[in-house]
Amino acid sequence: MKSDLPRLMRERNLDAIVVNNPDGLGASNAAFNYFIGDAHVSTGWVVVKSSGEMILAHRTMERDEAAATGMQLVNLDAYNFKQLLADKNGDRLAAEVERSKRLFADLGVNGRVGFYGADQQGHAFQFLSALAREEICEVVTEPENDVIDAARMTKDEREVEQIRMACRLTEEVIGATRDFICQHTAQHETLIKSDGTPLTVGDIKRFIRLRSAELELEEANTIFAIGRDAGVPHSRGTAGDPIQLGKSIVFDIFPRLLHGYHADITRTWCVGYAPDHIAQAHAQVAQVHRAIEQMFDTRRAVWEYQEETCRLFEQMGHPTIRTNSAITSGYVHAQGHGFGLSVHEPPVMRNKGMATDEKLQVGTIICNEPGLYYPDDPRGGWGVRIEDDYWCNREGVFERLTHFPHDLVVPLN
Amino acid sequence: MKSDLPRLMRERNLDAIVVNNPDGLGASNAAFNYFIGDAHVSTGWVVVKSSGEMILAHRTMERDEAAATGMQLVNLDAYNFKQLLADKNGDRLAAEVERSKRLFADLGVNGRVGFYGADQQGHAFQFLSALAREEICEVVTEPENDVIDAARMTKDEREVEQIRMACRLTEEVIGATRDFICQHTAQHETLIKSDGTPLTVGDIKRFIRLRSAELELEEANTIFAIGRDAGVPHSRGTAGDPIQLGKSIVFDIFPRLLHGYHADITRTWCVGYAPDHIAQAHAQVAQVHRAIEQMFDTRRAVWEYQEETCRLFEQMGHPTIRTNSAITSGYVHAQGHGFGLSVHEPPVMRNKGMATDEKLQVGTIICNEPGLYYPDDPRGGWGVRIEDDYWCNREGVFERLTHFPHDLVVPLN
Repeated sequence: MKSDLPRLMRERNLDAIVVNNPDGLGASNAAFNYFIGDAHVSTGWVVVKSSGEMILAHRTMERDEAAATGMQLVNLDAYNFKQLLADKNGDRLAAEVERSKRLFADLGVNGRVGFYGADQQGHAFQFLSALAREEICEVVTEPENDVIDAARMTKDEREVEQIRMACRLTEEVIGATRDFICQHTAQHETLIKSDGTPLTVGDIKRFIRLRSAELELEEANTIFAIGRDAGVPHSRGTAGDPIQLGKSIVFDIFPRLLHGYHADITRTWCVGYAPDHIAQAHAQVAQVHRAIEQMFDTRRAVWEYQEETCRLFEQMGHPTIRTNSAITSGYVHAQGHGFGLSVHEPPVMRNKGMATDEKLQVGTIICNEPGLYYPDDPRGGWGVRIEDDYWCNREGVFERLTHFPHDLVVPLN
Repeated sequence: MKSDLPRLMRERNLDAIVVNNPDGLGASNAAFNYFIGDAHVSTGWVVVKSSGEMILAHRTMERDEAAATGMQLVNLDAYNFKQLLADKNGDRLAAEVERSKRLFADLGVNGRVGFYGADQQGHAFQFLSALAREEICEVVTEPENDVIDAARMTKDEREVEQIRMACRLTEEVIGATRDFICQHTAQHETLIKSDGTPLTVGDIKRFIRLRSAELELEEANTIFAIGRDAGVPHSRGTAGDPIQLGKSIVFDIFPRLLHGYHADITRTWCVGYAPDHIAQAHAQVAQVHRAIEQMFDTRRAVWEYQEETCRLFEQMGHPTIRTNSAITSGYVHAQGHGFGLSVHEPPVMRNKGMATDEKLQVGTIICNEPGLYYPDDPRGGWGVRIEDDYWCNREGVFERLTHFPHDLVVPLN
């Protein structure tokens, strides 16, 4: 959590960290948003010193939004970029480097300085190379699991409360979607709208979008995939597909609070009835889901969960990703992952050799999402996934944050 | 436009370009989305060869989404990352570099290769440094106005149609918001809801959010700022502020089609009536807006528009940003900017010395957004901005794409 930063910086021997927010990345630049919260600072720099002091360098136009962060502020426009640009004969990068030099001098940023946050990679490469070349500081970069990822890997009370709320609202959307489906009647194994045309994946996605907006959730890229599409884990579903009885539907929804934290929940449904082979697979996935839930422990390496999932599914006769990373049938993905400001955050529960030996710590938020996928089953492609969210609380107990029933069959009224 | 890429690559002496999409950037990674369109490829690489050939390297899980792009495909999982990781003793970066080496060899990517797209800057720096060090190709980076920016600077017919639709739908939201305001009555200079409590900025933002969702627009960070907040260009507005008569409201809305193109429109409103000083400023801004619209020409350097805007406002007695970049009263920002997949794209109409000598070309999409800001006016802070969107069509004529009336006063029913 954020309060770990001074310790994490000490462990990595960092005198300061600098987090950039170039224009246009918005909510995706989680490393920056981690510091500014729900204020709307569209460009700027966050500086954290080893003392724990945090400074936001912002534009004049955004002084109100910057003030809303409660951070110590410095105005980037005070550095007269126009003059710097003239001094550097119109070379923007050189002018930026000069501005950084002055900004860092004014803020006492020197020594080993880590640079974080998303940027256009060409700009990042040249900017950091120039800072290093001009010896403005010792430029430290971390290609993965960087100091900010490490802080974000555990959540503080305020963050957990936000995630709880995101989970609660997301479950409200899931419930409303289920009710919406139930309101329809079937003709020839297909759900029909009041105008006599088939209810489609597109109609349901529209319903999900509106219900999410009403609940002040930012929703995007929700998976609502039926039949063969349900058998391809990241298929978003095909808008024109009709909702047919007895086909598996994978509904994976991971919205966030406005400018805030995500939930990540999956349910698998069959409308009307479930064919035996899908019901059996659903029971198997539920069994693995339970086994992993019971296995959560702060003393285990994260790869153990994925290995156990593979072992259990293999025992049931399914191929798994641990023997072949390119398989498309059976169990084909990771067992779960952290989330928060991003929908995927470390740790990722991959197989041994694909993950480090790290453990789930107190404060971790993690999902548990086993699944089975048979897109090419001659009986008709299908997929099953069940995903719930957990918080490892201060006692080291994994509390489940999501409670929507796992029921496979959505009965019609 | 995209069809310019082979020429632009030749001009920059690039044998290939590689556009990365690391996980988690989604709609913000415009350089990548430019190629994949509205498919949902959450991680991958786009490779463009000097022949114009385009290849998408994707994950197995996303094979359906990848296929929807219509691009030539290669499966990243075929490179067995687990084995590469073992070969490199668990060093993920080294394994990635090795995978890229093999991928590039298979695709015939060599010589001068440009790297684009957003990434975590620490990862970008180390990854590109390693590619260069291992001489896998000649790594080319462009810190600004890169080859993809240059292509995106002009829009093809399909893109213009999307932007036209985004403009039309956004104007529908603006009109609905105006009607929503009109439905209210005033008590003591404040609009009141049916429950007797004041109508607030938060209520209106909620209305905008829902109406946008209904129209399938992705809306975020809309500015609806009243009074003093309207005097700070990027202030998003304060949710609790009541809508009071006779105060200026800056309403700047820039949503995009789902996974698609933006519009960017601003209107300034006073509910009920407008005080003389705001009415006068609004007329001045409208006059400058008209002058710039009439000045649009493919033979002028982009800084000429900003200089003319400053000259006109100064003639009217207002301070402007060209003399002092840190001013907070008068005309304090750029005259306009390109937009498309991002809400801000080159060119930006900055002052001379802050912009290059580039011209608005056929195919440019640009906004025209003069404004005046007096947050500290003793009569009460206020701001005025008018923003419309234009396309420089094949004949070099600047067509206005937005038509919502500029009327300042929103009369109550």
